[in-house]
Amino acid sequence: MFRVYHGLAFVLFSFTPDGGGCKAAEKRLKRPDKSKSSWHTSVVPFLMFRFSVIQKDPNTQARLGSMSTAHGPVQTPAFMPVATQGTVKATTPRELREIGAEIILANAYHLSLRPGAELVEQAGGLHRFMGWDGPILTDSGGYQVFSLKELCQVSEEGVRFCSHLDGSAHCLTPETVVRTQERLGVDIAMVLDECVPGLASYSEAARAGALTTRWAERALVAKTSEDQALFGIVQGGTFPDLREQSARALVSLEFPGYAVGGLSVGEDPRLTHQLAAHTVQGLPETRPRYLMGVGTPEQLVRYVALGFDLFDCVLPTRNARNGTLFTHTGKLNIRRAAYANDPRPIEENCGCYTCRHFSRAYLRHLAVAGEILSAQLNTLHNLYFYQRLMRSMREALATGRFATFAHLFFGLPAVEREEVRVWQI
Amino acid sequence: MFRVYHGLAFVLFSFTPDGGGCKAAEKRLKRPDKSKSSWHTSVVPFLMFRFSVIQKDPNTQARLGSMSTAHGPVQTPAFMPVATQGTVKATTPRELREIGAEIILANAYHLSLRPGAELVEQAGGLHRFMGWDGPILTDSGGYQVFSLKELCQVSEEGVRFCSHLDGSAHCLTPETVVRTQERLGVDIAMVLDECVPGLASYSEAARAGALTTRWAERALVAKTSEDQALFGIVQGGTFPDLREQSARALVSLEFPGYAVGGLSVGEDPRLTHQLAAHTVQGLPETRPRYLMGVGTPEQLVRYVALGFDLFDCVLPTRNARNGTLFTHTGKLNIRRAAYANDPRPIEENCGCYTCRHFSRAYLRHLAVAGEILSAQLNTLHNLYFYQRLMRSMREALATGRFATFAHLFFGLPAVEREEVRVWQI
Repeated sequence: MFRVYHGLAFVLFSFTPDGGGCKAAEKRLKRPDKSKSSWHTSVVPFLMFRFSVIQKDPNTQARLGSMSTAHGPVQTPAFMPVATQGTVKATTPRELREIGAEIILANAYHLSLRPGAELVEQAGGLHRFMGWDGPILTDSGGYQVFSLKELCQVSEEGVRFCSHLDGSAHCLTPETVVRTQERLGVDIAMVLDECVPGLASYSEAARAGALTTRWAERALVAKTSEDQALFGIVQGGTFPDLREQSARALVSLEFPGYAVGGLSVGEDPRLTHQLAAHTVQGLPETRPRYLMGVGTPEQLVRYVALGFDLFDCVLPTRNARNGTLFTHTGKLNIRRAAYANDPRPIEENCGCYTCRHFSRAYLRHLAVAGEILSAQLNTLHNLYFYQRLMRSMREALATGRFATFAHLFFGLPAVEREEVRVWQI
Repeated sequence: MFRVYHGLAFVLFSFTPDGGGCKAAEKRLKRPDKSKSSWHTSVVPFLMFRFSVIQKDPNTQARLGSMSTAHGPVQTPAFMPVATQGTVKATTPRELREIGAEIILANAYHLSLRPGAELVEQAGGLHRFMGWDGPILTDSGGYQVFSLKELCQVSEEGVRFCSHLDGSAHCLTPETVVRTQERLGVDIAMVLDECVPGLASYSEAARAGALTTRWAERALVAKTSEDQALFGIVQGGTFPDLREQSARALVSLEFPGYAVGGLSVGEDPRLTHQLAAHTVQGLPETRPRYLMGVGTPEQLVRYVALGFDLFDCVLPTRNARNGTLFTHTGKLNIRRAAYANDPRPIEENCGCYTCRHFSRAYLRHLAVAGEILSAQLNTLHNLYFYQRLMRSMREALATGRFATFAHLFFGLPAVEREEVRVWQI
């Protein structure tokens, strides 16, 4: 709480009429003059980015696809491990390769505050900086800024906020956010969007959705890199017609990919599912669809069935550090005394480094003793579990057996009954 | 402090005359009756342990050697990374192999308190439990117990102490300590010794040294495993004649290896050097000599020159977690702002995973951001630095150039002038 009040105080004293505002931030960018170009379609083509649907499932909306990026291909559906600060927590890049990750997600907001986008640019870009030579997608940071609540002020121009690190005043505009991600040199960038809470009113969601669209237009105009794909983000709160409007407006701007944001932010999971199902229908089949911040293994299967291609979530990595491990028969908390003498691996048929070499008894010991290796080994397993699940879905799609796979998956005891009821093929 | 007082209170109320005492602990062992056997030499041979000196340096006391253990060979001089709780902190076993570690050190005291020696035995022994199939040496825990100070009581029988974890009452005797290490199934075990502070008086050091010798005799009698080598520990405080006495007494017991303990515990480093130099002369050339808890890179070179073969220290791993990194031109603290934009690796010609893939700028970012990967990458580098130093010394010994190597090493700016003065070849 201290930091919050400290930050607020800083806002009061720092935001002179034009001193640290968004306009000033814009001026400091010194970008090439592109005022004469159209702002309805991107001025700079997406030369290094391609997406193709390889196979469509006959029974669901799921599809097997392939993205090509400036740093190599990604088979979809894909799960992106989260590397918020430029590292997938407790994991080396070579371990990420080993578990089969093809693309990771970093956060432009966090990296621009620390160590700074300029510093990363000088270091040769985020790939070189963090030692990961595969594709990287960055979230713009809109979600993080809006989660600060009291610490941010939204205007047509952009959003002013105070750093969660030191309370210093900052400003995000659609243009600065594009520029930051170009500096980071990532393969896929996200536009700045305004993310409203799950309980936001219709008028509030409508206003934020429309603003997000206008910001998306400005982001496309601001874009200068041919190597980087810029994805639009569908907003619209919990209102199907607003979601539809948002999707239609963004699609007319012809982004190379579309994300669905502002879901799983406190609303009923069934509503999430209905909104996602409704929204996805408004997105073109020829472009990748990214459901942001999702989710559990069950959600991944369900949303792949709806036609989503990309996912990210902190769940496997955060859970790992808390000792919660994924298996095909449910989660287990390795700190439980029941595992003190358990000679089995986390999961018998798992091929991850952790399961091939260590027992539950050892993993429990590491967790209870507070050893760093606990976070390392648990993270390797959970990420491997997620990658294996995605691979299984892709294999099922390739052989036309996705519906069977999904039915079998939801027949396992790991899945809560409630989730099965929501599940519709 | 709370835990200390809690522990003390526990001592007052828990130690009934014979309830939790050392005698009772002895009885619970139910060991085979070996009362008739000689206690001057080991009853059980050391079948799986061999040590041979391959080459002696013509200019110093240094020697190139080879130990063979139940879990494979170790080239000496060797540095043992410290795995106190059954993990070298922030490092996987395969990474330890990669950096060239051949033997590691764990701690019987810590492991017997958590997760418990019985549990490790049931898990197939420490090697299997922690996924390390190379040689393991365990310290008995004497040093740890005596560092508890107020929480321990020494008697002829052994030492009573309260756990640093929960204040529970425990007892170590020479026999229980051997039994614990046999349960752990390690390749080299250490006897229980009484370690006095660097400032201990002559009479105190004499008493403790004599007790350590009597305990060493009992330890040899207690030994039952043919796979495990048991090393004696020379004590004697800061008094050369006591060191000499202690060494002579232990050598007459014919241990397969000898450690020198109770040094670098607060005394003047020059005195440490003099005592170590004096003590090593009393140890047989045909047996490995282990200088416990040492040390800095400079100390390793110096004590190899004196004829020591084995070393362990938390310095490389602990420093790594604090951001202090070893290079051949001195230590650097990666958290310093000076490294924020530094594109170089920690050390230009270093072959470790960290130096091959990451810049100082990235490592600084990880350290400042509090990322677990910081501990991982820093530890890999520091341990690699230590292993590389030992390898360099072995190569120099193999080609008769150790004195040249040492002179060059101490000519580098990393070494404090004071240390050079102490250095004598």
